Amino acid sequence: VEAVIQADIVSIGDELLIGQTVNTNAAWMGERLNAEGIRVHRITGISDQQSEILRALDECAARSSIVLITGGLGPTKDDVTKHTLCDYFQSHLELHTPTLERITEFFTSRGLPMLDVNRDQALMPHNAVVLENQRGTANGMWFERNGTVFVSMPGVPYEMVWLMEHEVMPRLLAYFRRPAIVHRTILTQGVGESFLAKKISEWETSLSEVSIALAYLPSPGQVKLRMSMYGVADEQEMRRRIQVKEKELHSLIGEHIFGYEKDTLSSVVGTLLAQRQQTLTIAESCTGGYLAHQVTSTPGASAYFNGSLITYAEERKSAILGVPAALIGEKGVVSEEVAIAMAAGARKLMNADYALSTTGIAGPDGGTEEVPVGTIWIGLDGPAGARAAKFRFGQNRERNIQMAAQSALNLLRKEILGLNG
Amino acid sequence: VEAVIQADIVSIGDELLIGQTVNTNAAWMGERLNAEGIRVHRITGISDQQSEILRALDECAARSSIVLITGGLGPTKDDVTKHTLCDYFQSHLELHTPTLERITEFFTSRGLPMLDVNRDQALMPHNAVVLENQRGTANGMWFERNGTVFVSMPGVPYEMVWLMEHEVMPRLLAYFRRPAIVHRTILTQGVGESFLAKKISEWETSLSEVSIALAYLPSPGQVKLRMSMYGVADEQEMRRRIQVKEKELHSLIGEHIFGYEKDTLSSVVGTLLAQRQQTLTIAESCTGGYLAHQVTSTPGASAYFNGSLITYAEERKSAILGVPAALIGEKGVVSEEVAIAMAAGARKLMNADYALSTTGIAGPDGGTEEVPVGTIWIGLDGPAGARAAKFRFGQNRERNIQMAAQSALNLLRKEILGLNG
Repeated sequence: VEAVIQADIVSIGDELLIGQTVNTNAAWMGERLNAEGIRVHRITGISDQQSEILRALDECAARSSIVLITGGLGPTKDDVTKHTLCDYFQSHLELHTPTLERITEFFTSRGLPMLDVNRDQALMPHNAVVLENQRGTANGMWFERNGTVFVSMPGVPYEMVWLMEHEVMPRLLAYFRRPAIVHRTILTQGVGESFLAKKISEWETSLSEVSIALAYLPSPGQVKLRMSMYGVADEQEMRRRIQVKEKELHSLIGEHIFGYEKDTLSSVVGTLLAQRQQTLTIAESCTGGYLAHQVTSTPGASAYFNGSLITYAEERKSAILGVPAALIGEKGVVSEEVAIAMAAGARKLMNADYALSTTGIAGPDGGTEEVPVGTIWIGLDGPAGARAAKFRFGQNRERNIQMAAQSALNLLRKEILGLNG
Repeated sequence: VEAVIQADIVSIGDELLIGQTVNTNAAWMGERLNAEGIRVHRITGISDQQSEILRALDECAARSSIVLITGGLGPTKDDVTKHTLCDYFQSHLELHTPTLERITEFFTSRGLPMLDVNRDQALMPHNAVVLENQRGTANGMWFERNGTVFVSMPGVPYEMVWLMEHEVMPRLLAYFRRPAIVHRTILTQGVGESFLAKKISEWETSLSEVSIALAYLPSPGQVKLRMSMYGVADEQEMRRRIQVKEKELHSLIGEHIFGYEKDTLSSVVGTLLAQRQQTLTIAESCTGGYLAHQVTSTPGASAYFNGSLITYAEERKSAILGVPAALIGEKGVVSEEVAIAMAAGARKLMNADYALSTTGIAGPDGGTEEVPVGTIWIGLDGPAGARAAKFRFGQNRERNIQMAAQSALNLLRKEILGLNG
């Protein structure tokens, strides 16, 4: 088995140091490299000064075989990365004709004037492999020295992602001999990491016998379980072994599993509804539009999402959704009965197969002794009848809204699949 | 004037290197330090291995007066930061009684069993100033060596923020002599950085005469302009000079300014409505709930937000909002007339003073030659009548939804203030 390949990430830009920009690029690259068995050793954020960049390059070259650099490639005079790389690799700039053509086309097609600084973006270091950026005007660059690969990319996230996927990753995987790698990621919702760990402890122990590594990747409300195998057999055999273990996992915690790999609750529910040609509506109170936003953030949601209502004011719950004012008075607006009545009202009004509802106290204010902040009822009405579930989240408004939306989507997923018992 | 104080940030945790967690902590700290005139020199993300931590500490101590460390302080055996700091500062662990009492109370009040690993969190290095963490069980620690301050904090963002605000920043500002600093941040929406720069270029030049520095802080759809003065006069005089310049700025670009400092369009609109005891409703199509989510993410929104509708399916626009099917047929669902009819319908149904509406093509699919992806109409109905505005954003669904929500809130802000002409 080959040694672990180690990478360093260098993120260039004053905006990172003053907190103007959060370094999402490094996280994205870390995840992408990790999935291919390349270990990120360090992430370094520095200002766009030549001396800083040169120092960071020296440090990274001393410890890693791959150095991925983002930022500092814009057309303005503040952006010094390209010139610094020229110094570092004893290079000089040459006109890269295909790039000049691409940039010229970019400006003429938009009717914008092309400035000298734009033209200069077509000048590339003569000893770099030019990685043409089809999402912007700043190209990527690939250098090699003493077995270490240096790649420079623009800092705009979607340009960096495009270059990584289309140019950088394929070249890295061809350049470095790596063992075959198989991952399988299983997504759970609504149970904590320690609860899961307890439930699957024996299974987890058994993984080592077949050389499978397990990672817990928790995020608010969800835990991803990732099984990985690194070069212990051929790819087909590794896939087979992982499948066996995945089946076992299903028998242990199947009810908490909602999807795989890049699935989201929104995409999973959307696929289920689209397959069945069924529709969804929502009546939101405490989630204030966030649940609908989650549903509609999946492209193509218009195929199954009829629309929804957000009823903040109590009298709107009555007037539009038909929730009897007496019911609200008797049971309280945050109650099982009102959650169900909201869902039933929305389902009828919007003429949908399923309706979800939320009513609760997102906080920070509005809690009482009987109904403290974080109490949220989720209602559901559908072909098999109505039900509601009560949740008790925490004190944080944003988190409560997110958790309620997740829980609602998972309740619907289980309902469609007949898992709600 | 004192020299610039330089800080280093060390972010510890494998989850950062594999991209499981985005390093929002470093950005938050960078912004907070920068506001006090402390310059972040480098952000270093490393794994939670003792050798890595020790190396990073040595590197940072060689160049900075402040080293802020986050992560690796949890109760599990993987978290080695505290033990590593003990090594680094030739310290030993001692029981910190107030912390033991706090942790014990934490567990007993929740009826949870307290384990040895939890009790160990009350053991603190004997030569550290203990920064008690009132938001969690892992304390902060403050060490000094050769004029450099080292502060270790837990990696949980809201615990780190609490410690920074209540313990770390006050101590840093007392420890390091700094000049008085005055900032003023002015928020604009809907115009680009280069457009603004052109409009205010003379004004910007004049700032240097009164020793005011200007920073452009762009984010999607918005540009923040931050004026800063560092110790060139007493605080009152600096405030006075900045006020004079702010007035001049208003006369140049006042129409694009929506707020100051930490304002958001949602909070600004909310304050305006609450002051006037007026109410808002929304009819969303392409924004799919995101606009309502923005409005309701401001605590207290129930005082002015009646509720809203999301009508994805065309027949729901007709059935519920009363948009005539013939109008949709004639003008198209993405049109000025439908945007206005949606707003008017929602305003009536929800009995609100103002109504906003959105109808457009968020993408990635659904565009046509006449109505390409990114085309969005915003409608508004209110006491002064109805209007609509057309926007042409880009190809990115998420971005289009965000930009449309911002534009809608700013249209409403101007309408309430009588600025829409």
